[in-house]
Formats: sequence, structure tokens, C-alpha cells
Amino acid sequence: MTETTAVVLASRPNGEPVHANFRVEVRRLPAVRDRQVLLRTIYLSLDPYMRGRMNGARSYAEPVEVGQVMEGGTVSEILESASPLFAPGDIVLAHAGWQTHAVQDAHLLRRLDPSKAPISTALGVLGMPGFAAYVGLSEIGRPRPGETLVVAAATGAVGSMVGQIARIQGARTVGIAGGPSKVAWLKELSFDVALDHRSSTFADDLSAAVPDGIDIYFENVGGAVWDAVFDHLNDFARVPVCGLISQYNETRLPTGPDRLPLLMSVINTKRLLVRGFTQRDFVATHYEQFQSDVSGWLAEGHLKYREQFVDGIENAPDAFFGLLKGKNFGKLIVKVSDDPTRQSLSPQRDRPDLAQ
Amino acid sequence: MTETTAVVLASRPNGEPVHANFRVEVRRLPAVRDRQVLLRTIYLSLDPYMRGRMNGARSYAEPVEVGQVMEGGTVSEILESASPLFAPGDIVLAHAGWQTHAVQDAHLLRRLDPSKAPISTALGVLGMPGFAAYVGLSEIGRPRPGETLVVAAATGAVGSMVGQIARIQGARTVGIAGGPSKVAWLKELSFDVALDHRSSTFADDLSAAVPDGIDIYFENVGGAVWDAVFDHLNDFARVPVCGLISQYNETRLPTGPDRLPLLMSVINTKRLLVRGFTQRDFVATHYEQFQSDVSGWLAEGHLKYREQFVDGIENAPDAFFGLLKGKNFGKLIVKVSDDPTRQSLSPQRDRPDLAQ
Repeated sequence: MTETTAVVLASRPNGEPVHANFRVEVRRLPAVRDRQVLLRTIYLSLDPYMRGRMNGARSYAEPVEVGQVMEGGTVSEILESASPLFAPGDIVLAHAGWQTHAVQDAHLLRRLDPSKAPISTALGVLGMPGFAAYVGLSEIGRPRPGETLVVAAATGAVGSMVGQIARIQGARTVGIAGGPSKVAWLKELSFDVALDHRSSTFADDLSAAVPDGIDIYFENVGGAVWDAVFDHLNDFARVPVCGLISQYNETRLPTGPDRLPLLMSVINTKRLLVRGFTQRDFVATHYEQFQSDVSGWLAEGHLKYREQFVDGIENAPDAFFGLLKGKNFGKLIVKVSDDPTRQSLSPQRDRPDLAQ
Repeated sequence: MTETTAVVLASRPNGEPVHANFRVEVRRLPAVRDRQVLLRTIYLSLDPYMRGRMNGARSYAEPVEVGQVMEGGTVSEILESASPLFAPGDIVLAHAGWQTHAVQDAHLLRRLDPSKAPISTALGVLGMPGFAAYVGLSEIGRPRPGETLVVAAATGAVGSMVGQIARIQGARTVGIAGGPSKVAWLKELSFDVALDHRSSTFADDLSAAVPDGIDIYFENVGGAVWDAVFDHLNDFARVPVCGLISQYNETRLPTGPDRLPLLMSVINTKRLLVRGFTQRDFVATHYEQFQSDVSGWLAEGHLKYREQFVDGIENAPDAFFGLLKGKNFGKLIVKVSDDPTRQSLSPQRDRPDLAQ
């Protein structure tokens, strides 16, 4: 009987999550039944949406229950298989959560081909964050050549893809990030303008960066950036609402005045399109095209990406706290165990853009 | 040289418009030049959007300047024509404003056929308000059979069409209006549920009326109705934002807390589509189909409508004040001069649903 070392939700956070909200446990896994597989986690994805799962209220998905293993996407290796779909040694994309091992139904897994791309990219540029950027643009943002797109958290897993895909589609792109090293990276990502939201002149900088206004604001942050963007939105601007990381730890509404009527009024007079979405609502219809398009852009050198690895499942909570504070730089991944595919990659393929 | 009696914007309102904001003037019209016509106004449409034009700030259209004739749609008769398009006696849809006569470029006018429908309907069910309802539903609301639609100001020119078109398209419809006589009329319009927002139990009534939640909230009111609707919106609900009449006279934002972040959060987690629109953005693409569809539904008896006439251009301001307070009942029209087509209509055709 196999054991798993798991990070479970010990209690629900009140505002900012703390260590007491998590507990590391060693658990026995159930036996592998027909059509199931035993998985070893290689990489665990850490993503902002996980903060929402820690709350008791349903958002677009059910919450993680107290005592349950924290939810999360993983790249895993098949150790045992009672399914004709997979054999031991196969590498798969799974949703095995914050733990070292798991037993899962085989039909929920997606096979990865280590010869095509580093397997960790299935959690980033070729995975959920990349797909969120892709569908948010293709279904809601719909950049047209010459239009101006603004995105914040622009060095993040989603934001970096938003800017690069929009640029491929002909938009002028303005990326917002925190601090000089991230701003420097935005320029390497070919953003037309890179802004530092920590600058005391940020509002003026943004104003100067969008002389023709903003046609698409890809919302994954909320808060002060949205406030700064708001006045620059053009008629018919589109706002795909992918996430609001700046709000996730808020426990009460800000003091007034109440700007809800103002937002509705601007939506009305500027004929804005404001639409919330999650990537998973588009998997059935758009995922294959996404894989095809993004693989192609990667192969052609149009997309760069950056991954930040943290070693060890027990360090997932600290890494997650940092993610919520914007301390990560690029796609944040917990390296849970050895990656058996790393040796097979040529040095050039091995994360060419990973600077740290 | 012809004179026109016009209602001009005398000053901009601060909050609720008052008589001092208007002035009735007799003005000389310019001569009719090549490709122009001289018009006599028969009917003037009064609509909530006109409140926005009284402000100095640009909304989705340029403001009326102080000293200018108030803007508005009209049904007019051609008195003189220097255009091959029209002859004296022709009836046209124009945008001649709050005045008895006007000189206009002929190509801006749309010919009306008095044998097909009462000409006043070109300002209501077959005109701008009907078209706003039609495109807001066909392009944004997109009701599917069995879904629940809620609309307020539901006896109004737009709201009454929203409910009836959505019902034709298979939705369950909940109409909201103020006072027992309007609620009774909603039942004649075949709304599935008719609610009185003045009732002390309105919030509970709404909750009981939408046991399966709300899939489409057609927003033309704002304020307390939106607040009540908000908690009942389903995942993937659509909110066409057509107007916000309850806010038009507000001079400052309400006191806090600031619910803007809450709205964005609900848009995100429920994957709402909130989109502002004006009908005129769709004229080129959707107007002919609208005319065809609504004419057909009228002929088949699927649509009822109600018009309220006020006599005399000088009474337009008072009628407009009442409109902003919800005192009108049905499409509000100023009868500026005699309708030469009224005698030619059979008694049955003559506004069958006009109860007052």
C-alpha cells in the first residue's frame, strides 16, 4: 500500500492565508482499482485560483473541504496502471493536488509527450494559464490589429501569454508589473510598453502609454490597476475578467463612495463588454486549437516563458503565500520529485528562457 | 420663410431637470436647399436617453448644446421637397427634435407606410425602443427556451418589448413595474410573473418569482432593482445594459461601502456577461431583420403595445419630467400636430391596445 505526503486544508483562512491553514500529512492511498492508475507527482502547479477554493463558499467550483488535500494541477508519472490507456513510465497531466502520490481514474488524465516540450510547460504556457490567456483573448478580448491591450501581472503565467498572444494578433501591448526586474523582463517579452505599478508616477505613466485609449483590458488583478485603467477605456472596449488576485484576501468591501452605479453607467455609455470566464468552460471547444496554435508559436520562437521552481511539497504553502503577494516571477511550480525527462532534453531545449 | 416652434435647452440641469432648463422659442427655418425637405412634426418621441443629452459631458453621443433645439425622433410629414426621394404628403421617420417644423437632408429620413401600421409605432414598437429591445436580446441576452428573464420598467416602450420578444423566444419572463395598474397590464402582455417594485415585499416577491435564478437581466433601470436582482443571477447570466434611468438625475455617487470590487468578483466567479449597448450601433446590420420580425409578430397578434399621447410641443418638458419619474404608461409620444393618416385606418387597426 502506497503512502502519499499531502498538504491538506487544516482550516479556512480569514483574509490572508497562514501556515495554520495547512497541515502536511502522510496518508495511505487506496488500492488501484480497474481503470485507475497510481501517480507520482513530478510538478505541482500553484495558481491564484486556489485561494478561492480555500473559502467555504462556492465560487465557480466547489470549495476544498477542511481536511481534504489541496486541489491543483500536476504533471505526474504513472507508477502502476490498471487501465489500457497508460503504462508505467507514462507522463500525464493530472489534477492530483498538493501531494506526492495519488490514485486517479485514468480517463481524467491527459498524456504528455516529453519529446515535444518540457513537461513542466503543461502547467504553464501549454497548460491552464496559457489556455486562460488564449480563450480570454479569442472569445472575449478579440484584439484587432492596431488596438491597445493592457494587462497587469504581466510577467505572470497568464499575463505574459496575454501580452504575447495579443501582439501576435497585431495589438499594441502595455504590460504592468511590480519592480524593475519584472519590467525589464516585459521588454524581453516584446511588450510595446512596460510599466511598474509601484512607481509613484504610475497613473501618469499609464496615461502616457495609451494615447489612443484602451481597447482591451485583460483583468486578472483588480484593485488599483483597474481604477487606473478605468478612465482610459475606449468605446466598445472589452474586459475579459479572468481573475482578481488583489481582492482574494479581502474580508470586507472598501469604504465608499459606492462606485457600482458608476461602473454600470460607464459600461452603458461606452458600450463596454465585461465578461467573466474560466478556461475550463472552453476546454471541450477550444483546447485542441490552443495546443496547436501555442505549440506552433513556441516552435517559431514567438513566445517566451519563464518558470520558477520551488523544491518539495512541504514548501508549497510558503510558495503559495508568495504567489498571492506577487513575489513569484513567471509560472510558479513546485518540483515534488525528480523529472525523469530532463536528461533526455538537449541543453537548448531545456527551459531556454528560465533565468532563475 | 417658415417658422418653427421649438423647445430649446436653456441651461443644463443639476440633477432633476426643471422648467428653467427649457425655453420655447419661435425660430425662422432656413430655406429648403437641394436634396432637402421641409418637415411638419406630427409625433415627437420622448425617451429616457434625452436626459443624457442635457449634460455637458459626451456619453455615447454628443450633448445638445445650450441654445440648441432638444434632440428627438419624430414622425413627420413632408411639406416641401427639393429631393427626388420624397414628395409633399409623404410620411417619414426623422430626427427633427422638439419642434413643430424642420428642414432636413432627405437622405437621413426613412419612409413610413401608413397602410402597414399606425405611423406612431415608428417611434415605439417598430422604432428605436422596439429595436433596442430586439438587439439587446438577439445580440446579448440571447434567451434560450426555459431560461428566466427579468426586466424592469416593464410596461415601458423598451421593457414591454423585451418581455414579449423573450417570451416568443421561449423564455420565462418576469416583469417589474410600479403600481397595480401597470402590474395588471404586464399580465395582459403575457409576462409569466408581474411584480410591483413599490411593494414592501418586493425583494421576497422577486426571490419567489425566480426559483431557478435569473439567466438574463435586461438592465434599463439600475438602482434598487439591480440590487435585488444581483443575488439571483445564475452562472453565465447575461446583462444587456440598455439604460439606467434611476441614475440619470444623480449628481453624486451613493455612500459606501464601495461595491465595485464585489460586482467584478461576481462577474468573475459567475462568468457573467455584462455589456452596454445602444440600438444605433446595430442599425446597419440588424434593422431590416427587426422590421421584418416585429411586423410579423404584430400581424400574428404576438405583440401588444400601449402608447400615451400628450398634446402640444409646449407640453414636452412636463411630459419628459414625468417620464423620468416613471409616470408614463407605455410609449410616451407628444402629438405635435394632426395625424393625417388617422382617418384612413379602420377602427380595429386604430391602436387596438391603447387604453388611455
